[in-house]
Amino acid sequence: MMTDEVKLYGLWRSPFVCRVKIALNIKGIKYEFIEEDLDNKSAELLKYNPVYKKVPVLVHNGNPISESLVIIEYIDEVWKGVPILPQDAYEKAQARFWAKFINDTCIPALYKAIGSHGEEQDVVEANKQLQFLENELNVKGVVEEVLGIELANKDKFPKIIEWSDNYIKCQAVKDGLPPRETLLAFLKNLFGKV
Amino acid sequence: MMTDEVKLYGLWRSPFVCRVKIALNIKGIKYEFIEEDLDNKSAELLKYNPVYKKVPVLVHNGNPISESLVIIEYIDEVWKGVPILPQDAYEKAQARFWAKFINDTCIPALYKAIGSHGEEQDVVEANKQLQFLENELNVKGVVEEVLGIELANKDKFPKIIEWSDNYIKCQAVKDGLPPRETLLAFLKNLFGKV
Repeated sequence: MMTDEVKLYGLWRSPFVCRVKIALNIKGIKYEFIEEDLDNKSAELLKYNPVYKKVPVLVHNGNPISESLVIIEYIDEVWKGVPILPQDAYEKAQARFWAKFINDTCIPALYKAIGSHGEEQDVVEANKQLQFLENELNVKGVVEEVLGIELANKDKFPKIIEWSDNYIKCQAVKDGLPPRETLLAFLKNLFGKV
Repeated sequence: MMTDEVKLYGLWRSPFVCRVKIALNIKGIKYEFIEEDLDNKSAELLKYNPVYKKVPVLVHNGNPISESLVIIEYIDEVWKGVPILPQDAYEKAQARFWAKFINDTCIPALYKAIGSHGEEQDVVEANKQLQFLENELNVKGVVEEVLGIELANKDKFPKIIEWSDNYIKCQAVKDGLPPRETLLAFLKNLFGKV
């Protein structure tokens, strides 16, 4: 049996990297994690992702793969065991649609609301996008604690909150996320609130 | 044997819609095409794609799917026969990476160069992105004829041009693209050149 060599180039606080860690954990794959310094990117990262020069990059037996959703599809196809995407073609299409929605629409709207320190119109827009999600996204947590604004609550988004609460109970997810206190300290520093 | 009911809500000149038409043609799937009026979108489009309200939307036996790349993955999974994506997991990941690159990076750069009527810095940027593509994209054609600028040529991008020339020779592709003269007339009108 061939031994797989799996390396993940990442950044501890990137949600796109955490997503890949969680996928690897779900499959029970052993991997080496290489923390990148974004101000001084490694030669390997520049070689493996010459188009975007971004993390995450998964390197499987020397073959690099970039873009978190592409990586997750690859992990799901190569390693059997617990499936990540639904098996039914239509349900799989729905999962891909919502994953793309989170990437292209939700995350940018949330980043904008965070970047503007909770400016009302940006929060309204983020809420509008979250309204489309019923059971896909984990947004409650440290961001709200840092900014002192509420992006999602049980009354407005009961299904997201329920999904989120269940999601973070899973061991594979817990192991893929940074420690809450570390992330909180980083964000407080970033946004100038102590 | 169950008869499939396949409907495609689209717009004749949208490259995202043409892409789905080509996938359906490759699989030999019969479908009903519904041309949308973007100024007066149909109730069906709004119902089937409430998030983006955009074409293309594929409706298969009453189940709607949005986002062209998600639709193509679905078509490839549901209808066997000629495969669209590579079978090998790593090659498939590469195909997904480049498809995402074309969507997120190349097409926006090209639209920007077109929208600014070929402003130098926008053409340089589009060329920079095209440089990453060796065999994925069909960019040569009516856009250049309308604007009188050259975005891609045989010296700079020999592999793209070769791929493009071969791509449009395929009958499934030809049948999925709008007539050249119709598209040319539309774009000339749009950009005010006759």
